[in-house]
Amino acid sequence: MRTIVWNEKQQSVEIIDQNSLPVEYLTVALYSYKDVIRAIKHMTVRGAPAIGVTAAYGMSLAALRSTEKDLPTLQTQLKNIAQEIGAARPTAVNLWNMLDRCLAIVDGFEGHVDDLKATLLSFAHQLAEEDVQINMAMARHGAELINDGDRIVHHCNTGALATVDYGTALGVIRMAHEQGKKIHVYVDETRPRLQGSRLTAWELSQYGIPYDIITDSSSGHLMQAGMVDKVFYGADRVAMNGDVANKIGSYMLALAANDNKVPVYSVFPTSTVDLNMSQGRDIEIEQRDDREVLDITLNGDIVVPNGATALNFAFDVTPNRLLTGLVTEYGVLYPPFNEALTKLLKKD
Amino acid sequence: MRTIVWNEKQQSVEIIDQNSLPVEYLTVALYSYKDVIRAIKHMTVRGAPAIGVTAAYGMSLAALRSTEKDLPTLQTQLKNIAQEIGAARPTAVNLWNMLDRCLAIVDGFEGHVDDLKATLLSFAHQLAEEDVQINMAMARHGAELINDGDRIVHHCNTGALATVDYGTALGVIRMAHEQGKKIHVYVDETRPRLQGSRLTAWELSQYGIPYDIITDSSSGHLMQAGMVDKVFYGADRVAMNGDVANKIGSYMLALAANDNKVPVYSVFPTSTVDLNMSQGRDIEIEQRDDREVLDITLNGDIVVPNGATALNFAFDVTPNRLLTGLVTEYGVLYPPFNEALTKLLKKD
Repeated sequence: MRTIVWNEKQQSVEIIDQNSLPVEYLTVALYSYKDVIRAIKHMTVRGAPAIGVTAAYGMSLAALRSTEKDLPTLQTQLKNIAQEIGAARPTAVNLWNMLDRCLAIVDGFEGHVDDLKATLLSFAHQLAEEDVQINMAMARHGAELINDGDRIVHHCNTGALATVDYGTALGVIRMAHEQGKKIHVYVDETRPRLQGSRLTAWELSQYGIPYDIITDSSSGHLMQAGMVDKVFYGADRVAMNGDVANKIGSYMLALAANDNKVPVYSVFPTSTVDLNMSQGRDIEIEQRDDREVLDITLNGDIVVPNGATALNFAFDVTPNRLLTGLVTEYGVLYPPFNEALTKLLKKD
Repeated sequence: MRTIVWNEKQQSVEIIDQNSLPVEYLTVALYSYKDVIRAIKHMTVRGAPAIGVTAAYGMSLAALRSTEKDLPTLQTQLKNIAQEIGAARPTAVNLWNMLDRCLAIVDGFEGHVDDLKATLLSFAHQLAEEDVQINMAMARHGAELINDGDRIVHHCNTGALATVDYGTALGVIRMAHEQGKKIHVYVDETRPRLQGSRLTAWELSQYGIPYDIITDSSSGHLMQAGMVDKVFYGADRVAMNGDVANKIGSYMLALAANDNKVPVYSVFPTSTVDLNMSQGRDIEIEQRDDREVLDITLNGDIVVPNGATALNFAFDVTPNRLLTGLVTEYGVLYPPFNEALTKLLKKD
């Protein structure tokens, strides 16, 4: 299930439309960087790693569609376009990490503009391939944490759909299942966009992994009742001290787990770590349109009263003290996370 | 806004249909105790105090509709019917408290069956009136805890709709507003039945109290951001040690509040206290039909995959250590709750 595919003939990026799933399985073709921005903003593509790679293809599309023949002018254009793409969603840092890696190529480039276009495209392909390899590595490391019989709470969607393929936290769960471990997943529905009941439930049913959907406020009771062994979720940005910004609700889930001595793991590629951020409280939390909360229907009727307003924060920050381990492509990190992350990522 | 009204002419109980709100404001007439059971099960009437009073009217309806002329036989009938009504929803204890008070009248009764019918009906009227008076007393005690400018998270619906009139936790908020305090309410939408975004938002808009709806997993972030001063919710059953069973999600909300030093208050009439239950973990937690979780639609489409299953626990238990105070009609109780509740309710 590859979510991001390059169409050589059309010179376009084809992505799975995550807003239509699981009612319909549709792909959407993105022809320009403007298409890419729209797809990221509207969550046609979502999940920090998937957004990052789509953004890299966005840089390619910007270069390919440009009629500019002068290298310095094209370089300036691309720098401005990176700013535009980077502003599409503020919390996930993979987006900027991938854009920065593209910009490093743009900045240092010498030669013909057509060569720059070709270089950017093959770099996007490389990043996509890299993402799959990284996910497989994370899945192998993380699966060692899962025992036969484990009952796992999972928040949001972190599967193949959130990445180029295979997934982060859900990749770990999938690997454990493929290793023959008998597991059961409690799928947080993940209001307001329902990535859990829409996307994660759909992926799990594809893989044949048993699950039950639960409302986001249910896991505390399940843990009190001794029904949960582990919690796994992803990350949209990780501070150097191991504080993890992830889908809204992750923090309350981690609190419930800690109160019931259930281990909590966040699974992410190290491209999710913000080397310049020392603590999670500095991470900008995206606020989205309140219609996402208000447009809920029961039996086809909008249920909120006329004139109702909502607050719709898309993420929250789990403080490092609530996390048992961080699963990366290099292995599982344990506290103190500051030391572990510095050793891993800031070697001189 | 009286939610339970006796229609003398029809000899029926009229209740507000809470499943139709706020799309339509409909009343439903209950003519028999079977109607009462159906209304409680389907949550046409909901909220522990409202259920309790409706159940008392159910006993009246059973007596009134009975053609039995023999007192002992009628008494036996009514005892069996109380068992049936009491089984409609297992977690709220007000239901059984009210039924027990009706049965005490039935058991000790001597005289003509018509007099028993009349006595039961006037007792149901008395319980309804008592509920309103108790709510006003709770509201006065609780409102003293609210300061001008407070931003309050509220879970589920505990307003006039959950009682005969005025409300428990929402009654406290309403009283503070009527006292001229400027407050803002964050309304937990309260999945899966959306009592928050449907009923509480509707009540608040009727009273002119400013609010924003939030998803149930949002309050943790709001508290981390310093946007919340207090948490208020109701109770469906309270153990003698102060453990509180309430709508699913209350426990995780209390955890988030405690992690951010935000006070948490549960507001309930003392009829919600189960004198025979020493601790919350013994409270039976109702599990409802999983369609309530799965029937969620986005843009009119069911979003879960074919064959999806869900777990739908309706309540959870907040351990007493997470509660700052318990607001009752006799005043605000503080820890140790065991002592406070025993002193209040078990005086010899």
